[in-house]
Amino acid sequence: MLQEFFTPSVQHALDLAGIFVFAISGALLAVRKNFDVFGIAVLAEVTALGGGLFRDLVIGAVPPAAFTDLGYFVMPLVATVLVFFLHPVVERTQAAVNVFDAAGLGLFCVAGTTKAYEYGLGLTFSAVLGLATGVGGGVLRDVLANEVPSLLRWDRDLYAVPAIVGATMVALCIRFEMLNPFTSALAAVTTFLLRLLAMRYHWRAPRAWNRRSTAREEEQLPGKATA
Amino acid sequence: MLQEFFTPSVQHALDLAGIFVFAISGALLAVRKNFDVFGIAVLAEVTALGGGLFRDLVIGAVPPAAFTDLGYFVMPLVATVLVFFLHPVVERTQAAVNVFDAAGLGLFCVAGTTKAYEYGLGLTFSAVLGLATGVGGGVLRDVLANEVPSLLRWDRDLYAVPAIVGATMVALCIRFEMLNPFTSALAAVTTFLLRLLAMRYHWRAPRAWNRRSTAREEEQLPGKATA
Amino acid sequence: MLQEFFTPSVQHALDLAGIFVFAISGALLAVRKNFDVFGIAVLAEVTALGGGLFRDLVIGAVPPAAFTDLGYFVMPLVATVLVFFLHPVVERTQAAVNVFDAAGLGLFCVAGTTKAYEYGLGLTFSAVLGLATGVGGGVLRDVLANEVPSLLRWDRDLYAVPAIVGATMVALCIRFEMLNPFTSALAAVTTFLLRLLAMRYHWRAPRAWNRRSTAREEEQLPGKATA
Repeated sequence: MLQEFFTPSVQHALDLAGIFVFAISGALLAVRKNFDVFGIAVLAEVTALGGGLFRDLVIGAVPPAAFTDLGYFVMPLVATVLVFFLHPVVERTQAAVNVFDAAGLGLFCVAGTTKAYEYGLGLTFSAVLGLATGVGGGVLRDVLANEVPSLLRWDRDLYAVPAIVGATMVALCIRFEMLNPFTSALAAVTTFLLRLLAMRYHWRAPRAWNRRSTAREEEQLPGKATA
Repeated sequence: MLQEFFTPSVQHALDLAGIFVFAISGALLAVRKNFDVFGIAVLAEVTALGGGLFRDLVIGAVPPAAFTDLGYFVMPLVATVLVFFLHPVVERTQAAVNVFDAAGLGLFCVAGTTKAYEYGLGLTFSAVLGLATGVGGGVLRDVLANEVPSLLRWDRDLYAVPAIVGATMVALCIRFEMLNPFTSALAAVTTFLLRLLAMRYHWRAPRAWNRRSTAREEEQLPGKATA
Repeated sequence: MLQEFFTPSVQHALDLAGIFVFAISGALLAVRKNFDVFGIAVLAEVTALGGGLFRDLVIGAVPPAAFTDLGYFVMPLVATVLVFFLHPVVERTQAAVNVFDAAGLGLFCVAGTTKAYEYGLGLTFSAVLGLATGVGGGVLRDVLANEVPSLLRWDRDLYAVPAIVGATMVALCIRFEMLNPFTSALAAVTTFLLRLLAMRYHWRAPRAWNRRSTAREEEQLPGKATA
């Protein structure tokens, strides 16, 4: 029932939009890493579908949505073709891509939390899986590209916090039986706006306290590789 | 029924052969990366069984074949022992290893596509999972060895295309009800030969169009690490 | 029945202790890699719960224990807070952390092997999954931190062997119907002590035989990156 808050066609269109923008971010990284066209397609698919695939394996929804809906599979290929031919243009519109990525994050967190709850998980774990749905694809993208996941790095603008806020809002709405299309949309929009603000004002999360001592230690060991 | 196209014992022998050659490629990379004997064994097991394990988790075939068939587990250990003692010999026969790896790729793509279809996936997704079965182990091998997956790199001979062709052939045969031992073997042999040709003539897939502009950009940023 | 060897509350307390010490090791690596506070939390959760999550997906125990027990989720967050504020102190007590990590390894191997057997796996595969439960979290930790998994490296003290011994002891006890709280504890303690001895005397596993020839080859190729 929960999934009928939006009409199925609206929900599906939103899913496809989220998948598309995540796929763009994967394809762009692949171009920067000098991958060939198949590498670009693989990274686009993994970035777009990885988070939802992880969620579906955890809740036992097999075969996962990524392997039953043709649209989910085709969208990243469209993104691949687009980036393959137009990547200088797409990169110049990186700001636009970031806005869409923020929108995708909001949609995935809300949809992931809702689906996890429908499959019987507790509220906390539903929110955790919603968060994982939102950020999981990006982590897999970076692991495949052999880079430190940008989610984990301190020198990137806040990404986890907007997702946590959105997923938590959905969990709280479920708890107080207030989940409806309006509150779902509110949670997605909040995630979206928080992420935009984080990028606009370069909000960052703190590193470990008293970090300076370790930094000094590293200066004395210049050969040591750091992330 | 589909799986009875080959007699079970023939199919099983082919599976074991594919597992063995993939395990050799994992063990050789482990030696090159200076891993200890347990690292070699882990990389051999992951390379040989990773693709099938992913397929089985996605289609809900738990416990996966990798955890129910002792032969599947033992073959990579045999490969480990062989490479451990004879790796200079094995490396000198790298050409032979590549031929066997191509054979393994063909067998895995065909078997993977067939099994996915038996578990109820659509034709497109069966082919995708067949492809993932064939190439997944190698990707996991490279991720564990902390290298950019050779599947994704533009400077490696075509690996994805032969696998895609083989998996697609199987899917088309299923579609037109023509799947039988002969057409299965034909798909595997086609994959095998295409991969051999790709290695012989160094076929490569294109990188993103208009790539030169980005390359120039990188020259201006010599400190930037690229794959 | 097997899981009632320890009273549930004792078993649960042991699980939480193992999760906590693994989380500490993940959080410490995150601090060393300069991750922000969310990166520290993610790495703590993955290190602590990754091995068990993999086991549960393989045996089809969904949703996995990691997503049903709040304590499992909260312990890594406690470890995150501790390391965030006190990491210089925690690092100075690295020796103590290593002792606890060894204890966690013992507990996870025994619990993992037992649970896999309860879900119908054969004895060999139960031991393999017990091993994977013990070492899997650490491998995922290193992959996410973009490092070569310390499990695979030849220049680290033995980690796999104690785990293999412990998991094998449990499998043998099951085989000869001798598994009880006493023999379970014996297997865990054996793993624990073997790991302590490996660290104390820097036991290492051999690399591939006749390795020197390859080493020389690498000297001639100074540009080649090695692990």
